[in-house]
Amino acid sequence: MKAPDALRAVLRDLPRLEPGSVWLAGAGPGDPGLLTLSVLTALSQADAVVHDALVDPRILALARADAGLVFAGKRGGRPSAVQDDITDRLVALARAGARVLRLKGGDPCVFGRGGEEAVALARAGVPFRLLPGVTAGLAGLAAAAIPATLRGINQAIVLATGHDPEGGDLDWAGLARLDQPIVLYMARRSAGAIVREMLAGGVDPGLPAAVIAAATTSRQRVATAPLRDLAAAVAAMPEAEPAIIVIGRIVAAREELTALLPVARERLAWLLPA
Amino acid sequence: MKAPDALRAVLRDLPRLEPGSVWLAGAGPGDPGLLTLSVLTALSQADAVVHDALVDPRILALARADAGLVFAGKRGGRPSAVQDDITDRLVALARAGARVLRLKGGDPCVFGRGGEEAVALARAGVPFRLLPGVTAGLAGLAAAAIPATLRGINQAIVLATGHDPEGGDLDWAGLARLDQPIVLYMARRSAGAIVREMLAGGVDPGLPAAVIAAATTSRQRVATAPLRDLAAAVAAMPEAEPAIIVIGRIVAAREELTALLPVARERLAWLLPA
Repeated sequence: MKAPDALRAVLRDLPRLEPGSVWLAGAGPGDPGLLTLSVLTALSQADAVVHDALVDPRILALARADAGLVFAGKRGGRPSAVQDDITDRLVALARAGARVLRLKGGDPCVFGRGGEEAVALARAGVPFRLLPGVTAGLAGLAAAAIPATLRGINQAIVLATGHDPEGGDLDWAGLARLDQPIVLYMARRSAGAIVREMLAGGVDPGLPAAVIAAATTSRQRVATAPLRDLAAAVAAMPEAEPAIIVIGRIVAAREELTALLPVARERLAWLLPA
Repeated sequence: MKAPDALRAVLRDLPRLEPGSVWLAGAGPGDPGLLTLSVLTALSQADAVVHDALVDPRILALARADAGLVFAGKRGGRPSAVQDDITDRLVALARAGARVLRLKGGDPCVFGRGGEEAVALARAGVPFRLLPGVTAGLAGLAAAAIPATLRGINQAIVLATGHDPEGGDLDWAGLARLDQPIVLYMARRSAGAIVREMLAGGVDPGLPAAVIAAATTSRQRVATAPLRDLAAAVAAMPEAEPAIIVIGRIVAAREELTALLPVARERLAWLLPA
């Protein structure tokens, strides 16, 4: 079978987005190349696309021309659509017979409230499906030339959120003492407090760390700093951009990779995001 | 701009796989719908596709008809291609001027040796790029109706590997005591020892856990069990299939979602993988 036929076969066998149902999907961290085939086909079927602020316009442009685009974004510090309003909207659209695509940045279930929306839809009797996306924490590391795992360096990687209004009692120093890298989502505001808690708990102030703003997009910026200087590095990033923070020895791999640049500086130039 | 034009624009703007370079890419956990557009276009360009055992044949069929397919798989317990041989092969192909796609299951940098291969390529002066894939641990949870995060339940999620020949000294009980879900990759053999260590360290034997075999594929199987019975549940899974294990209170969300099935049992049937 030739490749175009193989692609047609793959697309033909994907589930259909049925009228009256909602797919909770992830658009990935920004780069449209990280969109999955399932989400691409969902965009081509949906009557309504309910999206948040982090979904790239080039991805929304893949929706049907006659699809309704509904903005339901929430960003820290900005006027927020209330979560209940969003789920009510999803339920109402589905009950009206629409094929509904709820599209979020990254992965819907990784600090994206996909689970909460799934529970609400199930309670309302609305059929739904979870469509994973590439999560920003892992893709952001790759785009910054920081491998998420390396043998002999780490056996685990922790994805964490900086703020949880209903929780927030994570033992940051205890977590850091496990000596596994910690990737922080939405931690711009809480970074200072988290770092202070780690340092007070005896974590090495020289532990490598990095902040990656607008990960995987053309606006991506990366800064590395030891833990003691991390809060300042985070504060220096453009405020309007989402930022991923990574703390752990794995960050040093970026230095190793970029230190090899004299070998082939021009050809490896992509390794050095501005 | 209409959707087909928007798609052409997205694909046109993706980086080209140049002769003499290697892309280290992730094919996702199994479901071809989880393939990204970047990897799809890489398959359409590559002269050589060096793939591991977990890449679905339907994905390999998307390669150019005249591309060389090179199997370089490693599976626990099977005769293994040696890692050095694989990187030597990648370097030799690139130096011969080929456009090389190194395709792995899941995400290349999440326990996939993508980082190690990147370092080897950089040392050899071979230009490379890391193309993330959807990682099996997160997509496997979604496919088992277990949201990776839920407010009020967890503020972090830990991705860990069951065995690291060069490390392996992770404090499993200390990790579990942080009360955040732990997703174990390639932990079929080590599950028993990990559970024993957790129980000996005072972790609740009734903590919910699940094992997901062949996640996201048509052969997917899910079993839930309290921590004390997890090893038996893992042992009952078909040996030939890769398995993801998840330990933590978040697993109970699956019960909640599936308990709602009487509302719309047939329409929500996908929530109950065999």
